[in-house]
Parts: sequence; structure tokens; C-alpha cells
Amino acid sequence: MFELDPAFVRTSLAIGDLPLCAVRLQADARWPWVVLVPRVDAAREIEDLAEAGRIALMGEIVRAGAAVRAVGAALGWPVAKLNVGLLGNVTPQLHAHVVGRRPGDPAWPGPVWGVGEAQPYAPPQLQAALAAARAALGP
Amino acid sequence: MFELDPAFVRTSLAIGDLPLCAVRLQADARWPWVVLVPRVDAAREIEDLAEAGRIALMGEIVRAGAAVRAVGAALGWPVAKLNVGLLGNVTPQLHAHVVGRRPGDPAWPGPVWGVGEAQPYAPPQLQAALAAARAALGP
Repeated sequence: MFELDPAFVRTSLAIGDLPLCAVRLQADARWPWVVLVPRVDAAREIEDLAEAGRIALMGEIVRAGAAVRAVGAALGWPVAKLNVGLLGNVTPQLHAHVVGRRPGDPAWPGPVWGVGEAQPYAPPQLQAALAAARAALGP
Repeated sequence: MFELDPAFVRTSLAIGDLPLCAVRLQADARWPWVVLVPRVDAAREIEDLAEAGRIALMGEIVRAGAAVRAVGAALGWPVAKLNVGLLGNVTPQLHAHVVGRRPGDPAWPGPVWGVGEAQPYAPPQLQAALAAARAALGP
């Protein structure tokens, strides 16, 4: 029985589901940022996934990267580099961050995690970001 | 023609080669830390790898995690959580960091990248770490 950690509900919004992962938009307008959460009970590390799950996760990380680029484009925020991180020091449920970066962004060139406070999206930008992510991920 | 970015030569030591990646030990005794560099010319993002390369990279990230746990054990530094990061904001050549973490380590629970100054290994610990990593990765 998979249950999404409430921490993701507090900090992100549902984009949809891919075959392995719940796909969520980080509620932080500072970066186009997608979070993937494999719907696998009790997984904390990549090694907790079976071989097929590991391969699916890699594929979905690449698809999330396309969604991040699309979110950036929709917001007029071109992505120069993707950052992918699987940390889980605070929220141990296995998840992957896929974050769009560009020189001059609020943490560049350091990592985004733990930097400052999340900046809420204005409602029109939020709708544009969700729509762009969904269109990039496909049906 | 693949050529390792000199930044990796300055900051890490060769452990060996896996089928896809050069495997290196980060020269920083604060964390058991392996860096994987796919030997693929001009790759900057995961999406620059062909499908087979993406799958191989995922497999080698899991193998690097086992090596990181082995390095931690050899140094008396048990790993509680693996952190995996593909950033490349400073050194764009595609690479994956696999870092052993535990509560109370010098960056816990934040990310390790950009935190303080690298702490050199004492020679016996360096030899123990390299030997443990090589044994974990196998022939």
C-alpha cells in the first residue's frame, strides 16, 4: 500500500502520474521544479526498487526534465542546466528532484535544496506551469 | 574522443572503470563519496545518453552506492542514507555524485555540494577507502 508522504502534499502540487511515479510541481516559483515519487511502498533508496523500477525511474527522470524545460519556457525562464537530486535526508520516502537552473538564479551555481524560503506561484503562473508540465508529459 | 574534465583530476582519485563510467573517489574525507563520469564525449545531461547508456548509468549509480557503503564501513563511518546528485552547474561534463550521509555529518541534513572546504584524507585512510571501493565494485 503506497501512501504519499504528507511532506510532498505540503510543498508541491499534483501534475499527474507516470507509470512508476507520482509527478508533482514544487510549489516554489524560484525554479521550474518537478518531483517524482515512485509509487512503491517503503522505498527509501534506488536500490530498494527492482531492476525494472530502476529503469523506469531513469526514464521518468528524463521525461521530467522535458517537463521542467517546458515549465521554464512557459514562464519565460529558459533552463540552461538540469539538476537531478535524490537526497531524502529530511523526507526519506524515495523521490527525485528535477530542477531547472540558469546562471543568476537564486542559488546558482550551488544546489537549490535548503536555500531561502519557497516563493509561492501567482495563480496564473501556477496554472501555466501545470499546463505546460502536463502537455510535456503527454497523456 | 572522451576526455575527463581536469576538474575531476584535481578533486578526486581514480578507483577504476565500470562499463560506462570512470569511477572516482572524491578527495574529501568528510564523506564517503564516489563520482561517476560516463565516458561519453560531450554529454552534459542524462538525455544526452542513448537509452542503453541511461540504463547503464542507473545500474552504475546503484553499484557506486554499494561502494560508498563499503568505504564508510572501512572508515568506521556507517552510511545512513545515500544522496545522489547530477548537477553540473560548475563542471558541465555529465557526472553523478553518490555520497554517504549520516545525521550529524558536516552538512546534515542539507546537501554536501559547496559546503566548506574539502578535508584531505590521511594516506592510510585513503588507501583503505580506495581498497574498499574497489572490492565492492568487483573485478
